[in-house]
Amino acid sequence: MRVQISRPMLERLPIYASCIEGMIERDAAYVSSAKIARELGFGEVQVRKELATVSGTGKPRVGYDAKKLLSDIKGFLGEGEPDEAIIIGAGRLGCALLGYGNFEDVGVRIRVAFDISNIELAVDDKRICPMSRFDSYCKENNVKIGIITVPAAAAQEACDLLVNAGIKAIWNFAPATLRVPSDVSVVNEKLAISLSQLRQQINR
Amino acid sequence: MRVQISRPMLERLPIYASCIEGMIERDAAYVSSAKIARELGFGEVQVRKELATVSGTGKPRVGYDAKKLLSDIKGFLGEGEPDEAIIIGAGRLGCALLGYGNFEDVGVRIRVAFDISNIELAVDDKRICPMSRFDSYCKENNVKIGIITVPAAAAQEACDLLVNAGIKAIWNFAPATLRVPSDVSVVNEKLAISLSQLRQQINR
Repeated sequence: MRVQISRPMLERLPIYASCIEGMIERDAAYVSSAKIARELGFGEVQVRKELATVSGTGKPRVGYDAKKLLSDIKGFLGEGEPDEAIIIGAGRLGCALLGYGNFEDVGVRIRVAFDISNIELAVDDKRICPMSRFDSYCKENNVKIGIITVPAAAAQEACDLLVNAGIKAIWNFAPATLRVPSDVSVVNEKLAISLSQLRQQINR
Repeated sequence: MRVQISRPMLERLPIYASCIEGMIERDAAYVSSAKIARELGFGEVQVRKELATVSGTGKPRVGYDAKKLLSDIKGFLGEGEPDEAIIIGAGRLGCALLGYGNFEDVGVRIRVAFDISNIELAVDDKRICPMSRFDSYCKENNVKIGIITVPAAAAQEACDLLVNAGIKAIWNFAPATLRVPSDVSVVNEKLAISLSQLRQQINR
């Protein structure tokens, strides 16, 4: 049974992991939530609660076995068999995501980007395929996550293809609002908004 | 005088804009915050307050001149002369961001990506330059925003270069926590976390 956790907690897990890695490098065998909280400047109650969610409670007074805690956190983030994801839109952004290696750490494997151009390319274990292969690939590989990196005007069409293929989780990079059935989750990656936010923070 | 607004509001502004565009297409000359709120399923108080922040209050009973409101929202997002941004790291992701056209809509112009390889390339008005050009480019072009797309191990070094060049706003794609002076803003783009979040939402 998988526990549902919040996005802020998901963002903190890799921070805990790198803090614990630093402690292990400095020869710590045991680490406590209090010490991690102090080092990171986080609230102790929150750290204790979140570590307990992924690794149970530590030993009283001693804390957690540092290596086990680290492996529990990494295991939680990349738990089990990786989920298969595919990309629709093999432009620069699609190819960047296809080539990015760090997603396997969070349990997601991307091996193929589909594109309306009829090119077919293979680099190492990654491929760019024509759309005609889309349906059969999704069926044969039990694809769980679809990533949309097409222009805004083509985003809904790409989304409908994903939904029709039975995909329930969509990561959308197109600056478009997608209409999906209620059992489909969409995470919109709003790159321009991040820049807008930074721009707000520049003093004028 | 620029108003500081929250990230959630920044995310809603483009949604308001596309809703108003739809109304204009359907021949509306005037639009009210109540109507926009209803169409989007947002709270009316929030919509009224946020539209007032970017466009003043509408006319009683009539609402806003639709075209003026739309242009005020777009103007707010991309206000004034665009801020210059540069990229450090011209790998696939760096090149994807360099080639992405939509950032000018939010008032940010990216024309150059710097890379430790000594290649020099120009495509249309975009360039990839060696690091040796970095300092002079930043000075001559009043660069305000630095974007980090190097591997995690090189991220702090890239960040220090940006800070030393007087850049106060950093958009970081590397999975690394950056140390910066207190007057420097960092927005961390956590792509792997978005996938992690989607993965959480897939029913098992």
